[in-house]
Amino acid sequence: MSDTNNDSMGRGTQGTKMSKHHKKLTASAIKGAIQLGIGYVVGNLNSKPDRDVLMQDFSVVESVFLPNEGSNLTPAHHFPDFRLKSYAPLAFRYFRELFGIKPDDYLYSICNEPLIELSNPGASSSWFYLTSDDEFIIKTVQHKEAEFLQKLLPGYYMNLNQNPRTLLPKFYGLYCIQCSGFTIRVVVMNNILPRAMKMHYKYDLKGSSYKRCASRKERAKSSPTFKDLDFKDMHEGLNLDSETYNALMKTLQRDCRVLESFKIMDYSLLLGIHVLDHKPLSRESRCDSRKGQKVLYSTALESIQGSMKDPEPLGDDDTFGGIPAKYKDENLPHLSGDN
Amino acid sequence: MSDTNNDSMGRGTQGTKMSKHHKKLTASAIKGAIQLGIGYVVGNLNSKPDRDVLMQDFSVVESVFLPNEGSNLTPAHHFPDFRLKSYAPLAFRYFRELFGIKPDDYLYSICNEPLIELSNPGASSSWFYLTSDDEFIIKTVQHKEAEFLQKLLPGYYMNLNQNPRTLLPKFYGLYCIQCSGFTIRVVVMNNILPRAMKMHYKYDLKGSSYKRCASRKERAKSSPTFKDLDFKDMHEGLNLDSETYNALMKTLQRDCRVLESFKIMDYSLLLGIHVLDHKPLSRESRCDSRKGQKVLYSTALESIQGSMKDPEPLGDDDTFGGIPAKYKDENLPHLSGDN
Repeated sequence: MSDTNNDSMGRGTQGTKMSKHHKKLTASAIKGAIQLGIGYVVGNLNSKPDRDVLMQDFSVVESVFLPNEGSNLTPAHHFPDFRLKSYAPLAFRYFRELFGIKPDDYLYSICNEPLIELSNPGASSSWFYLTSDDEFIIKTVQHKEAEFLQKLLPGYYMNLNQNPRTLLPKFYGLYCIQCSGFTIRVVVMNNILPRAMKMHYKYDLKGSSYKRCASRKERAKSSPTFKDLDFKDMHEGLNLDSETYNALMKTLQRDCRVLESFKIMDYSLLLGIHVLDHKPLSRESRCDSRKGQKVLYSTALESIQGSMKDPEPLGDDDTFGGIPAKYKDENLPHLSGDN
Repeated sequence: MSDTNNDSMGRGTQGTKMSKHHKKLTASAIKGAIQLGIGYVVGNLNSKPDRDVLMQDFSVVESVFLPNEGSNLTPAHHFPDFRLKSYAPLAFRYFRELFGIKPDDYLYSICNEPLIELSNPGASSSWFYLTSDDEFIIKTVQHKEAEFLQKLLPGYYMNLNQNPRTLLPKFYGLYCIQCSGFTIRVVVMNNILPRAMKMHYKYDLKGSSYKRCASRKERAKSSPTFKDLDFKDMHEGLNLDSETYNALMKTLQRDCRVLESFKIMDYSLLLGIHVLDHKPLSRESRCDSRKGQKVLYSTALESIQGSMKDPEPLGDDDTFGGIPAKYKDENLPHLSGDN
């Protein structure tokens, strides 16, 4: 996908399936249908009493038709008629609760403002949408990916239960929208690199050195995502205090074991580095002694170390937190997440 | 099974499978092989590093051969050669940890003293063994029951995670012993009616009134297990304080939903009533006003109400606890568990 928004989606991609007589469907109609559909099913779920998730719930697919003119159950809308399928709705409700996402906040984030279409940061054929409040990423997935994710849900549930510090993606919902001959499946995930926190360096790390340099095209971007060999060249590692290091390594080991059990090989750690009081890392400046900065503790650190007693109060600008790290004498809090 | 111990097991039952040329196997050899086999596999598991349970772990069956003369890995013993299969060993290790059973305590309880053979309290064809310390029940199960239980483990895991106050049986291990042509499968469970706490009344409750009277044979026993209609006739209900009542009802509802999801119909609530300062319940005495007794709070109550702050200290004789209940003016702590 190009970096610029493309309002016309009347083209075949791996993520979509066209009928012979499809109408041209605008990107804004797709985004609108995603918002309306998710809003409808999540709102509907709110009225159902809370109950324990059962094994059977993982394989449920609930389907609702939302005609343009509305129905007894569904609101009228300005998009073409569409059908929304909600995968394992009770399981995802449980996950959202576990992740501390309140139903109203989820609805508000997804439905209240237009979705922002992002450039594709990876090599996949997915499209990415971001909620206006920076909270959620909505990623299109292929039929097989959606099926695969649904099959993994029991194991995903177990991992969240046993390993709450996991850095694996947080999945909040899995949906399918069928509209004007298109079929689009989307997964709602956490946005681990919120725009409001400038990342001075971004890395996609696989722990491999084979062809692990960012392409020339990627490097030319305003905020490129570098790879393992670039990281080695540009940072020569990061210094974490031993407690943080051990907690992070333990979490990564546990996450990798889960990914292995899912027979997933092609994963990477997405690493964002925010340099406090940023000055560019040049060969010359690397060994400079710099003035120390307050190292922040927040969500990402707690997520690997467990809850902390008496955390230091955070200022308004500090709420993104991160894991404190040092490059030699620099303080480099960074956010990390398995991808 | 008769009430008296029968040292010879050279007979076909639903729980066993004989080869044509089986040797006569004594009950003490079976009990000994169970103890030695479980002791070996649980001890062996202790040396394996702890790790998260994965979905795949539920379907594992580990097998070890224990020849009479011993081997590099297994000890010599005085029983015929036998093979022990351990179902989902890592999952059960996780469950034992969740139930607060330390590996050494589990080994000590099962292996250190001879098992006690119990009379069959129910209608099933199972045999029951009790550990000498009253902690664990070892119940023989048929091939299909063992397979069924293993298939339920993911759902069982989920229930323990979401509903820690569950009154469903606590399963600590599932094993298969193959010895001299016999195949015996056993499940290790919690003993909800320990001998040291005299139960003045025992009930097997199904919430049905159809043919739910204890048989004449059952009534003739020294400690009979009565049924729903007997309960109605003998107690006309029990009074629980409203908090306990609500917690118990909620727990039973959640447990029943899980059993329903497993497509299990034939279950009952095993209810034991211990009358403080017991006097027999006769028609004449039922409405007598009695001196109040200290009502105990312990494991069984906490298990449905959640952890309690500052529990009252318990005397040596009070450690069995129970759920406080009143029959009119009587205090009747009782233990309960779904069966």
